[in-house]
Amino acid sequence: MYKLIKALDSKFGFDQAKAHCDVPCGIYDPIVAQISALTVVRMMDLMAALEGEGVAFNNSMTRYITVKEKHAEQAKHEIRVIWGDFIKPDHLAQYPELTELVHNIMQLGSKARQTADREVGVALVEAINQFAEIFWAIKGVKTKKAKAPYAPELEMVYPDL
Amino acid sequence: MYKLIKALDSKFGFDQAKAHCDVPCGIYDPIVAQISALTVVRMMDLMAALEGEGVAFNNSMTRYITVKEKHAEQAKHEIRVIWGDFIKPDHLAQYPELTELVHNIMQLGSKARQTADREVGVALVEAINQFAEIFWAIKGVKTKKAKAPYAPELEMVYPDL
Amino acid sequence: MYKLIKALDSKFGFDQAKAHCDVPCGIYDPIVAQISALTVVRMMDLMAALEGEGVAFNNSMTRYITVKEKHAEQAKHEIRVIWGDFIKPDHLAQYPELTELVHNIMQLGSKARQTADREVGVALVEAINQFAEIFWAIKGVKTKKAKAPYAPELEMVYPDL
Amino acid sequence: MYKLIKALDSKFGFDQAKAHCDVPCGIYDPIVAQISALTVVRMMDLMAALEGEGVAFNNSMTRYITVKEKHAEQAKHEIRVIWGDFIKPDHLAQYPELTELVHNIMQLGSKARQTADREVGVALVEAINQFAEIFWAIKGVKTKKAKAPYAPELEMVYPDL
Amino acid sequence: MYKLIKALDSKFGFDQAKAHCDVPCGIYDPIVAQISALTVVRMMDLMAALEGEGVAFNNSMTRYITVKEKHAEQAKHEIRVIWGDFIKPDHLAQYPELTELVHNIMQLGSKARQTADREVGVALVEAINQFAEIFWAIKGVKTKKAKAPYAPELEMVYPDL
Amino acid sequence: MYKLIKALDSKFGFDQAKAHCDVPCGIYDPIVAQISALTVVRMMDLMAALEGEGVAFNNSMTRYITVKEKHAEQAKHEIRVIWGDFIKPDHLAQYPELTELVHNIMQLGSKARQTADREVGVALVEAINQFAEIFWAIKGVKTKKAKAPYAPELEMVYPDL
Repeated sequence: MYKLIKALDSKFGFDQAKAHCDVPCGIYDPIVAQISALTVVRMMDLMAALEGEGVAFNNSMTRYITVKEKHAEQAKHEIRVIWGDFIKPDHLAQYPELTELVHNIMQLGSKARQTADREVGVALVEAINQFAEIFWAIKGVKTKKAKAPYAPELEMVYPDL
Repeated sequence: MYKLIKALDSKFGFDQAKAHCDVPCGIYDPIVAQISALTVVRMMDLMAALEGEGVAFNNSMTRYITVKEKHAEQAKHEIRVIWGDFIKPDHLAQYPELTELVHNIMQLGSKARQTADREVGVALVEAINQFAEIFWAIKGVKTKKAKAPYAPELEMVYPDL
Repeated sequence: MYKLIKALDSKFGFDQAKAHCDVPCGIYDPIVAQISALTVVRMMDLMAALEGEGVAFNNSMTRYITVKEKHAEQAKHEIRVIWGDFIKPDHLAQYPELTELVHNIMQLGSKARQTADREVGVALVEAINQFAEIFWAIKGVKTKKAKAPYAPELEMVYPDL
Repeated sequence: MYKLIKALDSKFGFDQAKAHCDVPCGIYDPIVAQISALTVVRMMDLMAALEGEGVAFNNSMTRYITVKEKHAEQAKHEIRVIWGDFIKPDHLAQYPELTELVHNIMQLGSKARQTADREVGVALVEAINQFAEIFWAIKGVKTKKAKAPYAPELEMVYPDL
Repeated sequence: MYKLIKALDSKFGFDQAKAHCDVPCGIYDPIVAQISALTVVRMMDLMAALEGEGVAFNNSMTRYITVKEKHAEQAKHEIRVIWGDFIKPDHLAQYPELTELVHNIMQLGSKARQTADREVGVALVEAINQFAEIFWAIKGVKTKKAKAPYAPELEMVYPDL
Repeated sequence: MYKLIKALDSKFGFDQAKAHCDVPCGIYDPIVAQISALTVVRMMDLMAALEGEGVAFNNSMTRYITVKEKHAEQAKHEIRVIWGDFIKPDHLAQYPELTELVHNIMQLGSKARQTADREVGVALVEAINQFAEIFWAIKGVKTKKAKAPYAPELEMVYPDL
């Protein structure tokens, strides 16, 4: 089977990285995944802080969980798109840790849906920040670290434009 | 009718701006709308540059149009969310041009779907950049201007973190 | 910045109202937003009336909250579309209360998601009815008031066809 | 197999019609399907009238087709929901033509996606109007006929509230 | 009205079954509905087994309910598509129980959202298995029965390929 | 960075494969991705065979492209879910070709959207069949090969239940 993959590879020419973006390459930016991961942590914080009982409690709790669910999924989706469409085999050769990192993001994204444990959410943010760092390095854009300008104000990786 | 609105206003207390974000306030960031608007311009450029005919031509053209459609809608949706959830009546008093700007963005977003005219797409990007400038000013975050790190490389408003 | 908006305005010719509808103008009707707002109130009533505990209780409560969430969002979306695509600057000049009304609907829609308070839901229905009244007036169609033919049977604004 | 169906029927008690609506019964109104079907005809008219060539032509044509597609699907979805959730076996006994009518609507909805033939779109509108007539009769609400207050201004069945 | 339906029928030629599939006929397979129905039962099992309280309990319970909701809807949607697009009037003549079965699936799908009662979920699986049996018979493909290779491991109808 | 990943790994315990499925593990089955990939090839065949011109031609062509687009995306999404939620690090150790295969599926899925070239679609089907083979091997379920019971009737990998 491995040979078949290799054959496809050379046939469809996936292995040369392209400097420009054609659809579905479009315009890639990990910021959407980063904001989604921050939202996951924010929801975990709101869930932990929610007090009271009855209809009002149920209304808020259900909404936090649903928003957390949606954004953990969106974080995974965005990373999959960049990994599947932008990252070429020679990038993987250059950054051998990238594949495991992406698989980790997928698993952290699922964990972050299964739990309300803040540590999992923070780990998701950090893993996506690592991905952002590699992504911008591939693009040749310098990065910096700065606090997000909204709660939960975690330190994020941003392109230094 | 106007009185009724005023009554609701004082009843539900919309007019005091809140410094923190509760759901659906969540985490607001105009960057998603800005990237969407850039994507609209990118698709217009690809549409203008597309050559050839037959199935391959149709395949690419239909995809560019569909992506343009989706991102113009997303830009409008994101601005509506920030305007409807984050912007309070006293912000509108402080930035009297804001309402007209938002209405303009909605109209430019629709124009950008109806046409492939690049000028309309660029106007949408600019109007959303203006919105971003006001948004970050309300948040007390300084902004800077820099070229987007991907085609069509228009000058964008970014928070100076 | 205000000047730029004005310039765009005259450039893209938003200010002349069009009697006919081209896509995305399509076919506008506030009835979808009105039904959505009624559904919000209906869910609030069901939430308040729900008794019991355990799995069956959780199942119903979560579903009511999710349906409420979806319909409050749909109400906001529908009004945004009509306001952004159908309403032109000269309509805003003719009905100066319209912009504040639309902003109010957005805020009530968010409040109606954040809470299960029936008064908020009823206020959302009323604000959207006001919008419907102005919409049909612009179209030159007379309106009437009648009870909705389903729970919660609130008085609604309908076109008198 | 038929016996099993009958057994399920008596077990889960589908056959008694309920006067009130519990979720997912919610708030049923065929108006959304009716507006969707009108939109299908409107798009067919716009497709037939579209002139020109090149990018602008492709942009409009693709958008009309996509909107037609979406609204034909929505019309089918809405009718399925009312038929599946609101219509009980004893309604089917009372209106024996109802099942065939619903199956017809599904087929016309598909035809309306496969073609740009206006007659198919008009037949879809008429079949859904027939459904609306039966629906309101079951609810005990009188209906009237009136022209839709927007293009393509076909005669529609409305509840006489 | 019945006459009008008949007239449409002969006009648009719905009554001849087509051996091939044109869009939206596409590629029909009841397996997606079958998997969705199994997922509904799986969620009911998880809901019944869930223990504990507090945020973790709420997080899991809300997610199970939401997944159950989504898959019950998907099961109904898939069956509607096959019934509306693939099943022609002469199939209905050949399998007179088919219409009632489809209506039953719609009602069971709604019941399965309204409740966490496992018996309802199992009945939904069985009704969809019956539908699969008829579907494959129409296609001239033999079927077999086998346990699903994942929880809840119910006996399913599969094509014998 | 690699160390951080390792630390997360041992912290959140991703590396032990679980025999059962908890949400979001749910019920995994590559059949949905396989059907989606077949649909991609089917659309390519319909696109190549489409004749004529004018509105009817545009209507069909746009629909085929849109359906192709949607199903290529769905194939990628389904594989990502199984890979991200079901496949654990020790599976990756056991099947070292798996990661490259998944990355290949993502790239073929994008190619299949960018082009109407049947060979790309067939390669996507084959790569997903390879994935199915590994998936069922991990589950300890034997597989067989058989022609799909619908156009384009490609040979598929099915579990031998």
